Amino acid sequence: MTLELDRKAFRDLSYGLYLVTSFKGDRLNGQVVNTVIQVTSEPPRVAVIINKKNLTHDFILKSQVFAVSVLEESAPMAFFGPFGFKSGRDVDKLVKVAFKKGSTGCPLITEHSLSVLEAEVIDRVDLGSHSIFVAVVVSSGVLKTGRPMTYHNYHEPLKGKSPRNAPTIEPPA
Amino acid sequence: MTLELDRKAFRDLSYGLYLVTSFKGDRLNGQVVNTVIQVTSEPPRVAVIINKKNLTHDFILKSQVFAVSVLEESAPMAFFGPFGFKSGRDVDKLVKVAFKKGSTGCPLITEHSLSVLEAEVIDRVDLGSHSIFVAVVVSSGVLKTGRPMTYHNYHEPLKGKSPRNAPTIEPPA
Repeated sequence: MTLELDRKAFRDLSYGLYLVTSFKGDRLNGQVVNTVIQVTSEPPRVAVIINKKNLTHDFILKSQVFAVSVLEESAPMAFFGPFGFKSGRDVDKLVKVAFKKGSTGCPLITEHSLSVLEAEVIDRVDLGSHSIFVAVVVSSGVLKTGRPMTYHNYHEPLKGKSPRNAPTIEPPA
Repeated sequence: MTLELDRKAFRDLSYGLYLVTSFKGDRLNGQVVNTVIQVTSEPPRVAVIINKKNLTHDFILKSQVFAVSVLEESAPMAFFGPFGFKSGRDVDKLVKVAFKKGSTGCPLITEHSLSVLEAEVIDRVDLGSHSIFVAVVVSSGVLKTGRPMTYHNYHEPLKGKSPRNAPTIEPPA
């Protein structure tokens, strides 16, 4: 079977939807990502993919820590949209959002979040446009029970679009 | 906010469910994974996490290629269960399954698959128990339209358990 490269196939890959946050000095920032995965069980490690153009990438490079908040399925676009479509270079994305600082100093977003975790970076894979940050989870907790938002939920019922820096963005045909 | 490390938080991370296949000489093998993600758009690259104990890991190391078949939501456990709970060292997992060889030589499983892709490894991150294989997608196609199986579907409606080599396995309390 000889196939071309049909990017529609990539749409069948499944993801959650998360807010990833970090800090630099006393500045906080965060962004939406679809790519948080657990990569080992012992020790518990996760990976996240971040576009190098994003301010959160700079902050993680500098602080070597990040936090993840798992969006609940009912989180409204008005809440998390600014985390995907605005830059922390232009606005303080955390100013209107409920959060608490965790043990790493990263903001743990407590609004519309099912669970949170904090992680310390142990490796970075340079992919050109993006980095994979591999990190050891140092704290985690469940804030409430519920169904997590998925990337499919976001694209279908909410008619969401991918930010231009997402690894899943489809180039113009 | 100071949190302990509560692994229940990890259960809120979302994944799909996939069959990842490779080959070594004239031997074919494959396994279930939940960790296939797109990591860049240009060029289209994916990452997959594989336990080093698994035969598929050996095959990918040797051949430097793998294929991914996206399971459809209605795929029965009887079909894909053997890919997770049996080893290719003991049985030929492909013998009862419909597949075609792709341009890389990897088997593309055409039964209960929505989409397939083939990828050439460009980097490997050694995580001790697991490897992250980063790979360029060289062919992909949609076989049928439908809803993809998610890891949540597998755990809840199908009451599936994680194979002991999964990155998401929870150690005994």
